[in-house]
Amino acid sequence: MAQGKVLEQRTDDEIDKACVQEEAPDAIHFDVFTLFPSMFTGPLSESILARAQKKDILTITLHNIRDYATDRHHTCDGYPYGGGGGMVMRPEPVARAVETVLNRPQGWQLPEASAHFDLPAWEPDKPPVAGHPAPVVLLTPQGRRFNQDVAAELSKHSRLALVCGRYEGVDERIRTQLITDELSIGDFVLSGGEFAALAIIDAVTRLLPGVLGHETGAYNDSFSDGLSGILEGPQFTRPPEFRGESVPEVLTSGHHANVQRWRRQQSLLRTLERRPDLLALACETGRLTPEDLLFLSRQGWRPPGSSDDPLPNG
Amino acid sequence: MAQGKVLEQRTDDEIDKACVQEEAPDAIHFDVFTLFPSMFTGPLSESILARAQKKDILTITLHNIRDYATDRHHTCDGYPYGGGGGMVMRPEPVARAVETVLNRPQGWQLPEASAHFDLPAWEPDKPPVAGHPAPVVLLTPQGRRFNQDVAAELSKHSRLALVCGRYEGVDERIRTQLITDELSIGDFVLSGGEFAALAIIDAVTRLLPGVLGHETGAYNDSFSDGLSGILEGPQFTRPPEFRGESVPEVLTSGHHANVQRWRRQQSLLRTLERRPDLLALACETGRLTPEDLLFLSRQGWRPPGSSDDPLPNG
Repeated sequence: MAQGKVLEQRTDDEIDKACVQEEAPDAIHFDVFTLFPSMFTGPLSESILARAQKKDILTITLHNIRDYATDRHHTCDGYPYGGGGGMVMRPEPVARAVETVLNRPQGWQLPEASAHFDLPAWEPDKPPVAGHPAPVVLLTPQGRRFNQDVAAELSKHSRLALVCGRYEGVDERIRTQLITDELSIGDFVLSGGEFAALAIIDAVTRLLPGVLGHETGAYNDSFSDGLSGILEGPQFTRPPEFRGESVPEVLTSGHHANVQRWRRQQSLLRTLERRPDLLALACETGRLTPEDLLFLSRQGWRPPGSSDDPLPNG
Repeated sequence: MAQGKVLEQRTDDEIDKACVQEEAPDAIHFDVFTLFPSMFTGPLSESILARAQKKDILTITLHNIRDYATDRHHTCDGYPYGGGGGMVMRPEPVARAVETVLNRPQGWQLPEASAHFDLPAWEPDKPPVAGHPAPVVLLTPQGRRFNQDVAAELSKHSRLALVCGRYEGVDERIRTQLITDELSIGDFVLSGGEFAALAIIDAVTRLLPGVLGHETGAYNDSFSDGLSGILEGPQFTRPPEFRGESVPEVLTSGHHANVQRWRRQQSLLRTLERRPDLLALACETGRLTPEDLLFLSRQGWRPPGSSDDPLPNG
């Protein structure tokens, strides 16, 4: 069978071994500031993120903002000035947490016994020292939209601080005095930034060399450069037939060039059907080949701004 | 102090009590299909989602797809036909898991001892019975974009199945034979659908009556109807001054109408600065008031498609 080799099973250990033989990977460190650090423990202990940590490509330190609240009730929120529902995160505990951590070496964490009562010195009225060692990113629905390009941009940093907003949001003065970037994972509202932080840690980490257990890595993912910013097409694995539906013949033909052409066309078709905005963008940025454009024109697609007259063969 | 009452602290218990007095809430059930159920336990045990479960507004049953793989190694993935990096999720374990669960009452879960070897009867070659009791949603970067409107749409269902893809994605035949909806939380690639599922569970659940501990609930969140689809503006809480930055005077004036006007204008300004696309959409859908439009025109904003000539008072 032509595709026999491709279908050969490899164990996770073999895949790991193959990775280790690659070049020494870059590494990234996240300082996560949250009121709910235990939300992260399960998600970070599984699969890709767990493996990246085992290989020291990824390190994460979780910081509980509440540990930095010094009043008797460890208060981190307050009613909004001017009224309205919900609570707002107070500025001091967040500022104190972020500045205390970022002025110390990567990986530093407040000893549990020091929470609330034995914190390192910090002057609430002194503006922070300029030039933090890392971008301080607030997760908020009002931020710029996180996407694959932003993931690539973040993956260039060796250290990143993620601040998870909660309740109705953070006091505005956290934004103006502390935050260097604001990101939103989409036009919807979450109860806090924690799930957005998880998504960002995942999307960024999988771009680092050595994290994914195969050669091409994330290069051919949807939205990636390898796919020129469009969607992936359909994928098939065993069995060859499932409930009367067979794997397309071209995929079992062993003809590499035909497989590549079919996959590219399926990607274009899927993007045309589901996300024509991505096709327009790929076209504008010169990422579609003449062959792509010919194929698309046969489907009735026109580049944005071109004449609306259909081609004679349309 | 005029805002004294607003700034009064309430405990979580008091907020809970206030909620319970509201009308009996609707409830929603999620069946989550994943290879990593332990990714969900921490995130679902905290804050809003934990409280919603305690109040029986939210119930979630986690199903490990691997429990439904009957071969000796419990294999759930395979190499892609046609070659290429990464692995693809095989169709049978997913189909068997989803169909077994959805043909049983809400809340049913495979007993641990039955995994792999003592599964309920299932015929792999028999197409599923039409009319599942719940939408079967695949989380995939190729899906339609999840946003606040989709969250509102999903919150109308009493039961939802979420299927978390992993690796390079799922076999195409899962899509064609089993999945009724595909959602993406954004134009970025995750290692799996799990973090997307968490975001969707959170965004949907907080829309149900009784979940948020204050009267207006999610109505005034960014993107929501209460804000006519635009962004929230700045929020302030105590202290009144932080590092030389004071709370805007209007918020401590006690003049409700002025506070409302200021907040609306701040929302418009923030949206203008960060997401003009949302302003255009709000305008097209008739969600901006004449007062909004006048304020925006003074900032130099013009509705899409209008003349580019600035107004005389611009």
